[in-house]
Amino acid sequence: MTKEKTTRPKARLPRGFRDRSGAEIAAERRMLETIRGVYESYGFAPLETPAFEYTDALGKFLPDLDRPNEGVFSLKDDDDQWLSLRYDLTAPLARYVAENFQNLPKPFRRYQVGQVWRNEKPGPGRYREFTQFDADTVGSNSPAADAELLMMLADTLEALGLKRGQYAIKINSRKFLNGILALAGVGADRTGAVLRALDKFDRLGEGGVRDLLGAGRKDESGDFTRGAGLNADQVAKIMRLFTDDADDLTTVAGFEELTAIRTILQSAGYRADRVAIDLSIVRGLDYYTGPVFEAQLTFPVKNEDGEPVIFGSVAGGGRYDDLVARFTGQQVPATGVSIGVSRLMSALMQRGVLASAEEPLVFVLALDEISRSFEMARELRNAGIRAEAYVGNKKFGDQLKYADKRGAAIAIIEGSEEFNSKQVTLKNLALGAELAKNIESRAEWLGERQAQKTVKRSDLVKEVRAMLGGAK
Amino acid sequence: MTKEKTTRPKARLPRGFRDRSGAEIAAERRMLETIRGVYESYGFAPLETPAFEYTDALGKFLPDLDRPNEGVFSLKDDDDQWLSLRYDLTAPLARYVAENFQNLPKPFRRYQVGQVWRNEKPGPGRYREFTQFDADTVGSNSPAADAELLMMLADTLEALGLKRGQYAIKINSRKFLNGILALAGVGADRTGAVLRALDKFDRLGEGGVRDLLGAGRKDESGDFTRGAGLNADQVAKIMRLFTDDADDLTTVAGFEELTAIRTILQSAGYRADRVAIDLSIVRGLDYYTGPVFEAQLTFPVKNEDGEPVIFGSVAGGGRYDDLVARFTGQQVPATGVSIGVSRLMSALMQRGVLASAEEPLVFVLALDEISRSFEMARELRNAGIRAEAYVGNKKFGDQLKYADKRGAAIAIIEGSEEFNSKQVTLKNLALGAELAKNIESRAEWLGERQAQKTVKRSDLVKEVRAMLGGAK
Repeated sequence: MTKEKTTRPKARLPRGFRDRSGAEIAAERRMLETIRGVYESYGFAPLETPAFEYTDALGKFLPDLDRPNEGVFSLKDDDDQWLSLRYDLTAPLARYVAENFQNLPKPFRRYQVGQVWRNEKPGPGRYREFTQFDADTVGSNSPAADAELLMMLADTLEALGLKRGQYAIKINSRKFLNGILALAGVGADRTGAVLRALDKFDRLGEGGVRDLLGAGRKDESGDFTRGAGLNADQVAKIMRLFTDDADDLTTVAGFEELTAIRTILQSAGYRADRVAIDLSIVRGLDYYTGPVFEAQLTFPVKNEDGEPVIFGSVAGGGRYDDLVARFTGQQVPATGVSIGVSRLMSALMQRGVLASAEEPLVFVLALDEISRSFEMARELRNAGIRAEAYVGNKKFGDQLKYADKRGAAIAIIEGSEEFNSKQVTLKNLALGAELAKNIESRAEWLGERQAQKTVKRSDLVKEVRAMLGGAK
Repeated sequence: MTKEKTTRPKARLPRGFRDRSGAEIAAERRMLETIRGVYESYGFAPLETPAFEYTDALGKFLPDLDRPNEGVFSLKDDDDQWLSLRYDLTAPLARYVAENFQNLPKPFRRYQVGQVWRNEKPGPGRYREFTQFDADTVGSNSPAADAELLMMLADTLEALGLKRGQYAIKINSRKFLNGILALAGVGADRTGAVLRALDKFDRLGEGGVRDLLGAGRKDESGDFTRGAGLNADQVAKIMRLFTDDADDLTTVAGFEELTAIRTILQSAGYRADRVAIDLSIVRGLDYYTGPVFEAQLTFPVKNEDGEPVIFGSVAGGGRYDDLVARFTGQQVPATGVSIGVSRLMSALMQRGVLASAEEPLVFVLALDEISRSFEMARELRNAGIRAEAYVGNKKFGDQLKYADKRGAAIAIIEGSEEFNSKQVTLKNLALGAELAKNIESRAEWLGERQAQKTVKRSDLVKEVRAMLGGAK
């Protein structure tokens, strides 16, 4: 190897990032348009904040703190202030509201869609860049604000093609959980461990949660997870959350706001088949102060190894009344919901709910005069048909292979023979793809009459439309 | 001040970044949809690469190198590899092509839209995050590939509402410029200074460029810019670029590809009023190897002080045949064009070409039962009308002020009186906005009969439609 060779950079994606193309991008675009449509119909207004915030403005609210820079991508600006890439869209919203409070309508209802970055250890299906779609209501402590977000979330999931019963929106209250913890005499030092244990109710069931509240739990592989270390009495008090014998819990702080939200939802016709209270819902982020929300898919989805798994959360949120006060000292009630677009999309695509529906493409071969090919492509485009002329400089067979690789529906050829007789030849590649792939020359093309048609040049658009099946 | 107060973070945007809301976001979205529509109609396929690339993969091609990290935002990953945020969409494309070469159709024609970041000194109207919309053709060295991009760019600018004559697309060739420089005996050490001088032809005219090619130039403020230091003979040789007396330049390398592109454009009907050769076009990025392109607006645009200025470039690009070879050692011809979305949008908005056209909003006041307000809002939304119910918990007057601030077209009220008689009251805020703003109570509202109408509850949708002017 020469020295030059060894100093060439290797073309590689950064760890935990990915490229996306064609069908996936188109599907995400349709999905974002659907969500946007529902949010705008509810009167939420768009906002965009930059990718960077000052690190002190973002705050430290990520659940998993034992990561580099505590889970955030950070760098020092040239004036020595630390900048971080946003890890969600909520912390930037709090900064925006604090900075522009006087000029905003109250309540301020905005939506934002964008990428967020987490400096986490990459793993299979775990990326460090992903898309979130958030809606928040700032400046109202009414349960109507929470209820509205939950109705909107249910409407959105159904607009995306999920049927009732295929998703479940669950609500709980951090305030209520804290009240229960206080009743059970759980100190602040153990709150985190207890919440993490409750959060696993779905996966581990009652027994598993009991173990994690107490001494700990050994899983099938023999790995031991240390528990919160509560005594039997404390565990019993907390596990009453999951029994029907919980009448006296109604006096615990937070219970009332939870039932108020439920009452509004029910009278608006959003019943337990769409939104229901579930006392195991915790949500990881540290800034929640009251109700918390989570949307889950109820059907199994295949993981990367093709095994069916419970997909878990595709959206979440809650009330965070202290986030603006971090800046201003003045409490501003706020509540929001965030859709994990990339996660939800992969589930919807597996389910076939988000089928890709690209417009058919017409491919114009380049023979003698490229300008004639450009002219035909333009005529087709002007008629609303996607069309491209070949701009490479390859041989005939390569052009057909290209058309096949691009998934073109029709190939158009106008050689000098056709040109002189004012004709063009159309080949239906949807029918003749296999044949076309093996054609290496113009002569073979002409010999292969299947799925092809020579028509008047002046009828180009009409004949292409007919071959596309009249869809255009 | 207490200690707590002083340790609160200040809510502030990072230097050189900005927030965007309502009308601007909507306008950009329409603009991106228009560009995407044209590019897809030409058969270009979407691609998305991540925000981060490995620093060595991005390379150093920015024009202005005396910036922190050479103009790029960079940080070290936890495995000690350096990551950088992309500064354009071309370098990531080269990485993508090098990494996936075998599986791509050739030529590979893709578009990508996304944010890019430059670690530059922020200034008025100069941001460190902005949106680019790129289209590139990789794997063809045919002038047809360049010509196609230029036609597509012209079509795009016209689809965005610019009339012919309001924009000018200019093409030149780096190869040709280098040939001229060789003819004039300009050494590699002075190439940069000469290209920078040529680039100022539009702004400084022939005299200014002559000065900058020679000893230097003093501007009106008395500031002196040092020139390239060429002698009179060299200056004369280079300035022949701008005279008609340049027949022998046709033998210079690069001339032929330039005229080949022009010939294709002309035979496709794209003449000098849309795309023309302009030998002063240079383009700043270091990776161009052949033709370079630039689109400019021909009308003056107002700057931040309200003064009319020449807006300059809104799109640019060129051929970069060596960018993939950086990775693979194998030359892959490539050409592309990039639209500076944020720049172009601000010009189009000033020109009124991109008017904001938000759907009208209907505002439902919250009185006795929030669920009744939600119900009316839902009925309206189901009929395709944007509607929101008030989720704050404020007094009557605040609700109307809110509706005014939100620019709502109609306010709807259903107090107990209306409810009992199965009626609702509609107030046309477009007509009665001034009146509504000063209403503080329900009694005043009822007393103020102007621009309002009480109708049957069952006619809600019909009556709202009528008040909106039948647009829905």
